[in-house]
Amino acid sequence: MRPSRRAADEMRAVSFERNVSKHAEGSCLVKFGDTHVLCTASLEDHMPAWLRGGSKGWVTAEYGMLPRATGDRMRREAATGKQGGRTQEIQRLIGRSLRAVVDLRALGERQITVDCDVLQADGGTRTAAITGGWIALHDCLTWMGERKMIDRDKVLKDHVAAVSCGIYKDALVADLDYVEDSAAQTDANFVMTGKGGLVEIQGTAEGEPFSPAQFLGLLELAQGSIAKLVALQKQAIA
Amino acid sequence: MRPSRRAADEMRAVSFERNVSKHAEGSCLVKFGDTHVLCTASLEDHMPAWLRGGSKGWVTAEYGMLPRATGDRMRREAATGKQGGRTQEIQRLIGRSLRAVVDLRALGERQITVDCDVLQADGGTRTAAITGGWIALHDCLTWMGERKMIDRDKVLKDHVAAVSCGIYKDALVADLDYVEDSAAQTDANFVMTGKGGLVEIQGTAEGEPFSPAQFLGLLELAQGSIAKLVALQKQAIA
Amino acid sequence: MRPSRRAADEMRAVSFERNVSKHAEGSCLVKFGDTHVLCTASLEDHMPAWLRGGSKGWVTAEYGMLPRATGDRMRREAATGKQGGRTQEIQRLIGRSLRAVVDLRALGERQITVDCDVLQADGGTRTAAITGGWIALHDCLTWMGERKMIDRDKVLKDHVAAVSCGIYKDALVADLDYVEDSAAQTDANFVMTGKGGLVEIQGTAEGEPFSPAQFLGLLELAQGSIAKLVALQKQAIA
Amino acid sequence: MRPSRRAADEMRAVSFERNVSKHAEGSCLVKFGDTHVLCTASLEDHMPAWLRGGSKGWVTAEYGMLPRATGDRMRREAATGKQGGRTQEIQRLIGRSLRAVVDLRALGERQITVDCDVLQADGGTRTAAITGGWIALHDCLTWMGERKMIDRDKVLKDHVAAVSCGIYKDALVADLDYVEDSAAQTDANFVMTGKGGLVEIQGTAEGEPFSPAQFLGLLELAQGSIAKLVALQKQAIA
Amino acid sequence: MRPSRRAADEMRAVSFERNVSKHAEGSCLVKFGDTHVLCTASLEDHMPAWLRGGSKGWVTAEYGMLPRATGDRMRREAATGKQGGRTQEIQRLIGRSLRAVVDLRALGERQITVDCDVLQADGGTRTAAITGGWIALHDCLTWMGERKMIDRDKVLKDHVAAVSCGIYKDALVADLDYVEDSAAQTDANFVMTGKGGLVEIQGTAEGEPFSPAQFLGLLELAQGSIAKLVALQKQAIA
Amino acid sequence: MRPSRRAADEMRAVSFERNVSKHAEGSCLVKFGDTHVLCTASLEDHMPAWLRGGSKGWVTAEYGMLPRATGDRMRREAATGKQGGRTQEIQRLIGRSLRAVVDLRALGERQITVDCDVLQADGGTRTAAITGGWIALHDCLTWMGERKMIDRDKVLKDHVAAVSCGIYKDALVADLDYVEDSAAQTDANFVMTGKGGLVEIQGTAEGEPFSPAQFLGLLELAQGSIAKLVALQKQAIA
Repeated sequence: MRPSRRAADEMRAVSFERNVSKHAEGSCLVKFGDTHVLCTASLEDHMPAWLRGGSKGWVTAEYGMLPRATGDRMRREAATGKQGGRTQEIQRLIGRSLRAVVDLRALGERQITVDCDVLQADGGTRTAAITGGWIALHDCLTWMGERKMIDRDKVLKDHVAAVSCGIYKDALVADLDYVEDSAAQTDANFVMTGKGGLVEIQGTAEGEPFSPAQFLGLLELAQGSIAKLVALQKQAIA
Repeated sequence: MRPSRRAADEMRAVSFERNVSKHAEGSCLVKFGDTHVLCTASLEDHMPAWLRGGSKGWVTAEYGMLPRATGDRMRREAATGKQGGRTQEIQRLIGRSLRAVVDLRALGERQITVDCDVLQADGGTRTAAITGGWIALHDCLTWMGERKMIDRDKVLKDHVAAVSCGIYKDALVADLDYVEDSAAQTDANFVMTGKGGLVEIQGTAEGEPFSPAQFLGLLELAQGSIAKLVALQKQAIA
Repeated sequence: MRPSRRAADEMRAVSFERNVSKHAEGSCLVKFGDTHVLCTASLEDHMPAWLRGGSKGWVTAEYGMLPRATGDRMRREAATGKQGGRTQEIQRLIGRSLRAVVDLRALGERQITVDCDVLQADGGTRTAAITGGWIALHDCLTWMGERKMIDRDKVLKDHVAAVSCGIYKDALVADLDYVEDSAAQTDANFVMTGKGGLVEIQGTAEGEPFSPAQFLGLLELAQGSIAKLVALQKQAIA
Repeated sequence: MRPSRRAADEMRAVSFERNVSKHAEGSCLVKFGDTHVLCTASLEDHMPAWLRGGSKGWVTAEYGMLPRATGDRMRREAATGKQGGRTQEIQRLIGRSLRAVVDLRALGERQITVDCDVLQADGGTRTAAITGGWIALHDCLTWMGERKMIDRDKVLKDHVAAVSCGIYKDALVADLDYVEDSAAQTDANFVMTGKGGLVEIQGTAEGEPFSPAQFLGLLELAQGSIAKLVALQKQAIA
Repeated sequence: MRPSRRAADEMRAVSFERNVSKHAEGSCLVKFGDTHVLCTASLEDHMPAWLRGGSKGWVTAEYGMLPRATGDRMRREAATGKQGGRTQEIQRLIGRSLRAVVDLRALGERQITVDCDVLQADGGTRTAAITGGWIALHDCLTWMGERKMIDRDKVLKDHVAAVSCGIYKDALVADLDYVEDSAAQTDANFVMTGKGGLVEIQGTAEGEPFSPAQFLGLLELAQGSIAKLVALQKQAIA
Repeated sequence: MRPSRRAADEMRAVSFERNVSKHAEGSCLVKFGDTHVLCTASLEDHMPAWLRGGSKGWVTAEYGMLPRATGDRMRREAATGKQGGRTQEIQRLIGRSLRAVVDLRALGERQITVDCDVLQADGGTRTAAITGGWIALHDCLTWMGERKMIDRDKVLKDHVAAVSCGIYKDALVADLDYVEDSAAQTDANFVMTGKGGLVEIQGTAEGEPFSPAQFLGLLELAQGSIAKLVALQKQAIA
């Protein structure tokens, strides 16, 4: 029995609220249960130095948590003077995941930065950020398409969404919340496209090692969950 | 005529949404028009080193802006590696303003940190942060009072609220929005208590110096506006 | 009775020593009693990035304190690795104050940096820095005028000077020294031009809030003090 | 055909040189072909703050690259002033992998730091670091066992080793070198124990997404390779 | 012929002004010609962590330059966020030099920090700082002796002073000023005690290597100069 | 009697292993007894900003220590966030020493960076780094000569090598190891060219001051040792 009384393959309530920012070209407040992430996509006029003068664009992501998004207040990274290893790991993952469904040549020499800021955390912030970040990116590209800057459907090749699955009290379960995550034996994040291709897999044994068979079970759970997330994304942008 | 068609002494629509955080002891999403600030008050078990072993508590504030809270995306301070001068100036102001209405001895040897994070900016973020931060602090102190940690009404001596007034196209106006703020000749922030005492005054000539008479006019506008803000705070916590 | 036995509106002995630096285009050692600040104005050939290619110049300020300028030795900010919030707040104030009397277009695309380093502190370092910084700036502009780089009298529109006034043991007093400053109920800094225009007002209640009437009293004290400072500046540059 | 003419499941020449450091409690120079990593395990007398006073020990890892370990010289991280995101990601992975086979309670309240410094890089530095780091850790624990500080065989529960497998020109191959890694469509790192349990899986699509079937193929290659690495570790410590 | 028309073994005018700081336990404004360094000695109640609980005290030094101490304005190290290599090298040298004449056991478990801040630079700032720093240290120890904290004459074992000598246009000259320093073929700093013992020698070929014979010539010049500096120190403290 | 039973003028076993890096244009693993330093010389296509557009090249050095190169593990400088004063002092010394034998004009507008990373430390790391760094630099220049980029024999004017000598238990000894270094009364580093010219002298009294006569003795020891090092360099590159 999961603490939330969900079935093993049951995700939390997922919602997308679009256009939550007056300023950003695309924005989305995504909720996976009590995990709330504000995603904005910003079109920027400067490129990273190592890409200048090429014919490709770039999509990157930054991730942050408000200090009291969590049960105990964490130190503000701006005050600490640096982004921790966890933050960097997550924002690199979000960036790679979004780039996997973007044709950077079709984007042209422009950069889009997707900021994912966690307003409230209850497990699964990185998977919510990828899934909601895709909506913000989609809306930014639509905005650019309307202004004839790009052909949106050439730039955005597919959906991308993510879910964490894990082994909790020896059971394979989908979309871990914080209580489950803290006690999970194994925690794995899966990022997949709308067509079912795998973009990223990250599985970690928190206690005992896991078996290949268990891992295949988690992969199967993830396939089902991500299909649902992609369907919800489609509704949201309809 | 103000760009927003408001009367000279007319504030933007002000609202307070309480209990927006599952985790914080007190929280409030405050809106002054399109300026939205998420305030959380966190009770913490450690004190700043210079206060340890005394018999007083401490109230402090931190301030941040999401990178795309503004028209152009700003660099994330956590990525830059430091908080800029403006950020530090504002968070010091918020902290001083809130402490002005707290009896630190009655609080006991505890620290409350009020985080004010700007989700969307349209001028007046520091005044909204002070006004909404007071609600979050009030709710945190109520939470502590319910647990018999403190006598809330001894700790919290009064309301505190803030407004910016300025000279825009030679007219004295209250609660500047971003368009007015960018073009104002003079911009002044006033922080006052519920009883009408002055806690902080910061006035700056952006172009031509201002006269003592003009400054008195701004002070009068501020007195009227802050009385309204305090009335709204009272409604919100009723 | 003030600890220094001064009358309520009596400033400390104020002096300006010009040309104290062999290298700087303008320099002044300013003393407000035991507060000693070395001000240098440096003409620099690079502009801040955000101003390049415009037709305006820039005047900026930096502020520092020698580690043992104070009663207890403070950590050296260069060793700490960053300038604290107080330092940044003060140097931003000095810069804004000096720019208020400079015509940046008439200056042309050049930057002048006014460094204010406190050799010895006894209260009022920021007001001494503004008042002495104006002398250094004046001498730097004279130096440029002599070389036909600018028309000094077009660039420098007026004097600017500053004083702190406050409420000490319920009395309104001018030019607080350290002993008064530490115990003041309210501390306010005023920056005004030679013509009596207000450039900056910063008033803070350290304990109880202050009333509008008290604030007007402080403003009046400041007007008298700044008139004296401007007269002394005129003598110094005569 | 692989550039190195290796068969698809053929690893590079792997070697372990033990006791390469005069000072460290355990040390190993591990080579996976032209990738050379110097691993030292240091017993330290201080614990991370968050573990003090508990009854558990800690094993952590740090990772670095000499500036010219790579084809082009990279900036030295000590000069840059921070460890990049990639460095932090890798050292967190190494630490988690080693801790997966250590009984931290049996270790007692002590910390072992495994430093993995890449002297020369040719792909697969993190997998070499984990595999060689295990030898250094083993030797450090043996050193402690000889001094009766611990029961080594209770502390060290199993072997751990790692390999990267990937899809290169549509073929599944084991132990990518730099040339393959740069052009791989998919790159996956696997960390497994001596008993065949999975500790960590990280798979990333560099270009096109990969299919679940392809991923299973990579997992199978990894199982074979890691079995070989564990056999080599056993020889090395015999 | 030297640019300053001094004889080869002629130092610049040297002066010491004591008690220039209202706050510091010892202070001295030292001038070697146009090189002016403000030295303060501060008695501090905390020790570096690695010395705590021992029976020895510590003397350390910090060095800084005001941004416009030099011909071109340099960036303020506090703004840059770190002390450069040159700064660290110099302050380590000053600290070692002063400790060479202090009996740290007789000092007791206390730390004295000597701050040397260059108000104006014209070559030889480090040698002036050592020579003037000794006066500040002497006066701080006298202050402590008067309060019966130490026996000053046991703590302070000897004088210490420093001079730079060099090869300028093939001639050996003493006490290089900036013009000579910039063009010198070889530049050497010598630190010696009142009894003529060598504490520190640092010689650097700026262009061609120098011969042992030349080096002996520089040493001889230094011996003469330092004897004069020690005589001046004796006058100053008489 | 020296702890290592060496004669007073006897160096430790010195060896140079060339071409230890697959990537660097020149490389050398130098050993002075148990002190092992990996030196690589990298030809780089960017110049420091202050040299751009001139007609000269630049040779610079960076120095680092692996965290467990020493008896106790030191904190990794990349993790600390800055290079310590000792590191900066040493890398500046290595750079100056190597530049002393390079004709920067004949090098052309290119930069060579010599990285010296201490794999194992037992005293004398800086002198080993200079002596081995010269080999790496030589091989890098040979590489460039073979590609007709430069005339190596015009660029590289001479050998350079270094040794530390000191006073240990009142005896003058050459090439101090760690045990001697820790207890030495005086420690001096000498850098000399193949022709016997002095490039750099750094002598420090660790306890009692040293006399000019003692210093001359150390210089004589250094002359003998460096002659041997240069002979060994010649063998190594033959």
